[in-house]
Amino acid sequence: MSLNVIILAAGKGTRMYSKLPKVLHKIAGKSMLEHVIDTAETLKPSNINVVIGHGKEQVLAQLAHKKNITWVEQTEQLGTGHAVKMALPHIPPYGRTLVLYGDVPLINTETLVDLLDTAGEQVALLTDVLNNPTGYGRIIRNREGKVEAIVEEKDARIEQKAIREINTGIFVLPNKNLENWLNALSAENAQGEYYLTDVVGLAVRDDVDVLPMAVRASYLAAGVNNKMQLAELERIYQNRQASELLKQGVTLLDPMRVDIRGSLKCGQDVIIDVNAVFEGDVALADGVQIGANCVIKNAKIGENTVIAPFSHLEDCEVGANAQIGPFARLRPKAVLADEVHIGNFVEVKNTTIGKGSKANHLTYLGDATIGTKTNIGAGTITCNYDGVNKYQTVIGDEVRIGSDTMLVAPVKIGDKATTGAGSVITKDCEPNKLVVARARQTVVEGWVRPEKPAKDQPAAAPAETEKPNEAAKPANQSHSRRKNKR
Amino acid sequence: MSLNVIILAAGKGTRMYSKLPKVLHKIAGKSMLEHVIDTAETLKPSNINVVIGHGKEQVLAQLAHKKNITWVEQTEQLGTGHAVKMALPHIPPYGRTLVLYGDVPLINTETLVDLLDTAGEQVALLTDVLNNPTGYGRIIRNREGKVEAIVEEKDARIEQKAIREINTGIFVLPNKNLENWLNALSAENAQGEYYLTDVVGLAVRDDVDVLPMAVRASYLAAGVNNKMQLAELERIYQNRQASELLKQGVTLLDPMRVDIRGSLKCGQDVIIDVNAVFEGDVALADGVQIGANCVIKNAKIGENTVIAPFSHLEDCEVGANAQIGPFARLRPKAVLADEVHIGNFVEVKNTTIGKGSKANHLTYLGDATIGTKTNIGAGTITCNYDGVNKYQTVIGDEVRIGSDTMLVAPVKIGDKATTGAGSVITKDCEPNKLVVARARQTVVEGWVRPEKPAKDQPAAAPAETEKPNEAAKPANQSHSRRKNKR
Amino acid sequence: MSLNVIILAAGKGTRMYSKLPKVLHKIAGKSMLEHVIDTAETLKPSNINVVIGHGKEQVLAQLAHKKNITWVEQTEQLGTGHAVKMALPHIPPYGRTLVLYGDVPLINTETLVDLLDTAGEQVALLTDVLNNPTGYGRIIRNREGKVEAIVEEKDARIEQKAIREINTGIFVLPNKNLENWLNALSAENAQGEYYLTDVVGLAVRDDVDVLPMAVRASYLAAGVNNKMQLAELERIYQNRQASELLKQGVTLLDPMRVDIRGSLKCGQDVIIDVNAVFEGDVALADGVQIGANCVIKNAKIGENTVIAPFSHLEDCEVGANAQIGPFARLRPKAVLADEVHIGNFVEVKNTTIGKGSKANHLTYLGDATIGTKTNIGAGTITCNYDGVNKYQTVIGDEVRIGSDTMLVAPVKIGDKATTGAGSVITKDCEPNKLVVARARQTVVEGWVRPEKPAKDQPAAAPAETEKPNEAAKPANQSHSRRKNKR
Repeated sequence: MSLNVIILAAGKGTRMYSKLPKVLHKIAGKSMLEHVIDTAETLKPSNINVVIGHGKEQVLAQLAHKKNITWVEQTEQLGTGHAVKMALPHIPPYGRTLVLYGDVPLINTETLVDLLDTAGEQVALLTDVLNNPTGYGRIIRNREGKVEAIVEEKDARIEQKAIREINTGIFVLPNKNLENWLNALSAENAQGEYYLTDVVGLAVRDDVDVLPMAVRASYLAAGVNNKMQLAELERIYQNRQASELLKQGVTLLDPMRVDIRGSLKCGQDVIIDVNAVFEGDVALADGVQIGANCVIKNAKIGENTVIAPFSHLEDCEVGANAQIGPFARLRPKAVLADEVHIGNFVEVKNTTIGKGSKANHLTYLGDATIGTKTNIGAGTITCNYDGVNKYQTVIGDEVRIGSDTMLVAPVKIGDKATTGAGSVITKDCEPNKLVVARARQTVVEGWVRPEKPAKDQPAAAPAETEKPNEAAKPANQSHSRRKNKR
Repeated sequence: MSLNVIILAAGKGTRMYSKLPKVLHKIAGKSMLEHVIDTAETLKPSNINVVIGHGKEQVLAQLAHKKNITWVEQTEQLGTGHAVKMALPHIPPYGRTLVLYGDVPLINTETLVDLLDTAGEQVALLTDVLNNPTGYGRIIRNREGKVEAIVEEKDARIEQKAIREINTGIFVLPNKNLENWLNALSAENAQGEYYLTDVVGLAVRDDVDVLPMAVRASYLAAGVNNKMQLAELERIYQNRQASELLKQGVTLLDPMRVDIRGSLKCGQDVIIDVNAVFEGDVALADGVQIGANCVIKNAKIGENTVIAPFSHLEDCEVGANAQIGPFARLRPKAVLADEVHIGNFVEVKNTTIGKGSKANHLTYLGDATIGTKTNIGAGTITCNYDGVNKYQTVIGDEVRIGSDTMLVAPVKIGDKATTGAGSVITKDCEPNKLVVARARQTVVEGWVRPEKPAKDQPAAAPAETEKPNEAAKPANQSHSRRKNKR
Repeated sequence: MSLNVIILAAGKGTRMYSKLPKVLHKIAGKSMLEHVIDTAETLKPSNINVVIGHGKEQVLAQLAHKKNITWVEQTEQLGTGHAVKMALPHIPPYGRTLVLYGDVPLINTETLVDLLDTAGEQVALLTDVLNNPTGYGRIIRNREGKVEAIVEEKDARIEQKAIREINTGIFVLPNKNLENWLNALSAENAQGEYYLTDVVGLAVRDDVDVLPMAVRASYLAAGVNNKMQLAELERIYQNRQASELLKQGVTLLDPMRVDIRGSLKCGQDVIIDVNAVFEGDVALADGVQIGANCVIKNAKIGENTVIAPFSHLEDCEVGANAQIGPFARLRPKAVLADEVHIGNFVEVKNTTIGKGSKANHLTYLGDATIGTKTNIGAGTITCNYDGVNKYQTVIGDEVRIGSDTMLVAPVKIGDKATTGAGSVITKDCEPNKLVVARARQTVVEGWVRPEKPAKDQPAAAPAETEKPNEAAKPANQSHSRRKNKR
């Protein structure tokens, strides 16, 4: 039997207090609406109709990558029945329609498959039983226990309000009745809206069974109306992801302190310390260890590599047996081979680093290609930017870049070359050579360094403090004075 | 009716195992006593009397900014009744007195207003019902249900100990009876102390009603006697603050992992990732995003600015559409205009940065003024300190500071000036000019770099290792040798 | 009565999905087996026999530091009874034997002492009562309530499965019966294994009492079969450690967000902010404050020292009244005296720093000795490595190292010496002198800096962009051109 999906996503979400339409708020880094679309897609329906209204431009812009969606506009928000009706032109007169909600993000495939099985050619509705049903449509059953109607909170009589079995809003409806029923809906109720839930009464009238199915866990059918509920579902979703990782054999030091906003694939014997945040697509090979407080986005990390605490990785690749961090930052297009070491306060961007090379301290590597077994000294900077353009630095194999070397790109350093500490390298260096660019060390004779006045002495007389420059930069001033005398 | 407040704050808090008097321990960065004083102040009482004893000097020093407090010393700790009596000289014979406790920090205005309403001109006492009432004074009611007495744990008979309705200690008392009742208290009880709770029996004797009011939630009247209880109230307080933010529409990725120690004001569409810590007064404008693991103290952040993970901000201002971090540190008096970018491993202190300027890597900016659209290269340092004094660096608009530029303050760099990488700038630079201070790059001929001996070879003979210096710093030594030959 | 301990540790732990044998997985940084051995050692037994099988080489390697263990190999995994039998050669015919499990890591001394007291010369078994006993051996009692047998899940009849009193597997057995009973075990059961639990029936047969003792809390006897259970025990263990610290008077801002993997000793008035991770042996003296998100391993920190957020300390010592961080990294053999300040983006390794000295910004100090009251400027690097060897830097008292000073080791800087900013220091500096190694600042006349083309102009013609080098590094190229003309 063919399946159509209608996702209601036109609401504003006033209680979110946001400029974003409600369905664009995110769970685990992905908008609620996209969660629902992704789940709907797993059912391989004939089409997916998304009814949009408030903030429709934002929705269309953010979901532009979702192809094969039929976007349906609801210009006035006249109720769920009205919203579904907007999609009618895209629903054939055969098969079934599944109604989902852009603000019920954690509905899953398994539940929907079961609901479709329950439905057959009848109506199926997903129900829940809540301790506090206030605000929800109550399921009204007849003496035989069959569902006869759904009564909305605002229209419920006092004894109906005591019913704890509620409607989640998720329906499977036979297409052959759909147009008829939607046209028969009335807005004569407390809210003056066309309720989709009234199809239940119409189905009963037409001798179509209304088959309830209880949801396995409330969060699956929970809607989001405010940031509190958004946060609750975020944590439930995260905890479930953590449980999945644990089942696969990943070691999580604290399952309550890991966030996965995208896809995290882990090999065997992966250990993830507390407060890791993963975003986008991350793949950790066998034996990878992630230290405390790391943020890792769109990264692929090789076997047995250790990412030490406080590391920040984004759009990068790291080989096997590498050591990264603590306090390392790998930026987009950092591609590190096996056994590379990147240490503290080191930033790597758009740079390829060969096997076994190291940059352990206080370094910026941008737009560079570095060979194998090369050592980058502390304080090295690739000067890749002239304020307008970016240029490449190419460093060979087994090079030793001395501390505080400025590599003014474009520049090439040959294999096994060495640069002296503190050098500004502006010209290419031949292989095997030592290059330096450094001034001679000299003693500035006669110089007296500024000292704090003793506490029981008065501050220096004004006359002596009129030229603070002299006192402030004795080194260079004396130096230049000396030079000037040359 | 006029109101007086007496806050009991004289206890030592032995079970805190601390040198600090108990009431100075903090919840959300503010001492428990200050929480209580702040709440008392919202009632606009005629006066607030704080009874101090243990560690009174520390209390007075830490609360020195609290004006309009009447500090009352209790030199001997002879019980709550005795403590209240110490404040009698400051209580007029009309109106009412509210008794609070410096170690019951989360009592709130709403509860106290209700308790005062309950009291009228009678006695009111705040009660709670606990599953485990051990240790608390039990409420004894007569057959009509009226409160007749409070019996302390140590004086309670076995059947009284079964009572779960307990006294929180928070009272409203009519001033006209107060002196009389306090003078009538006796210390003939298990602890040999003057119990304030005995005023209940005296009120009954004098035909004054004792009106109990149950507290809405136990934490509101919970006392702190040890660090476990302090931690529990800290978490309750933090969770309630998180709930408030969620209600206002702030997105919290994990409401259990946010700490607010002071005041946090958020605009619309603010997103706060996990493990943020806010201290002091922080204001986040519309659309601000705070990344994971940030610590932010006394800061004002403009619209749509993104603070990336691992950023540490203190006493600073950031404009709109700025990008800060990851791994950025803004220190006191960092004032950043709109669209400023501060990147990784960059420290900014007492520095003003103009619109659109950037310092993205490994930089220290202290005591500086930087214009608009200026780019500060990686590794730049304002050398602002000569060991005694601090000096200013002034950088104009659209300047390009080359990588590893040392700006020896006081120094000025004119608009659109450029400095060459690796330069030590000791003199002012004119606008539009390129200034450099750099040695010539040379190749050190004949130099042989140290290599690790092959693994199957013996280590170098001692004779060859006697001068490690020569091997250790070939660059400079060869260099100086070469220079010397000049 | 003498005591022998047998610890069963031969299992593979298939559901851990790991290359490690199960008992080597860690709780709080220590393998589960080592936890059990450590607890067993507190009972001062005659011997401790550990039965190993799967991954025995890994077990022996990882536990090599555990002396006085009798390692017993079980080559085939034929059941718990068989495993215990393997250790029989090391059990004398007198005294008692306590059977423990390498995957029941949180059993504690108190419970075991009580169980031994319960046993006397009879059999004692540790039991638990679970809401869901599925999977556990059920305790079968006779009409008098005496234990008669334990029935494994797979062998249990339906009414036996309803029993919620279960066997934890921890037994005390009289050695005089042990060999007899173990030889009488049969493998004729659902799993075809020799169950140790069948000794209960044999004891009953031989008129030896089987005395059950209920464990106080389930976690004490909880076994680990998968990563979910490992994570649960990790969190329970961490929460109990946090409770212990709170009881001692330590202030924990969030007891749910602290990890202690080893031993943490705290003085009075220690405050630990959120997300601290402690590893190995850490000692914090009175008044120490640990900021948010710190990782501290094997460190000793002196009185009133403040460790600011995002600090990473390992194998180091810090004196009193010091200030470390934020973003500081102390690596092995960093030894800091009192009042030392280490600021942001500073790394210290194998370096001794004297009282009151400071290195506040962007610095690498390795293999150095630094005197007292010395100030290390921003961007300083000890160039301690020539690619093969490491050399020492020695800096005296009250020295002022200018910003961006490269100290090419081995090198000595005398007391009260000063180095100019941007200097590469290759030769020793005498006391009190100012030394510089710095090029002259010059203006490059005629230079035109590259600018972005105005947006409404076409990009530069190809002919003009053929030599990007010229545009890219105007500073040095002009500079060298100038130099060449000299």
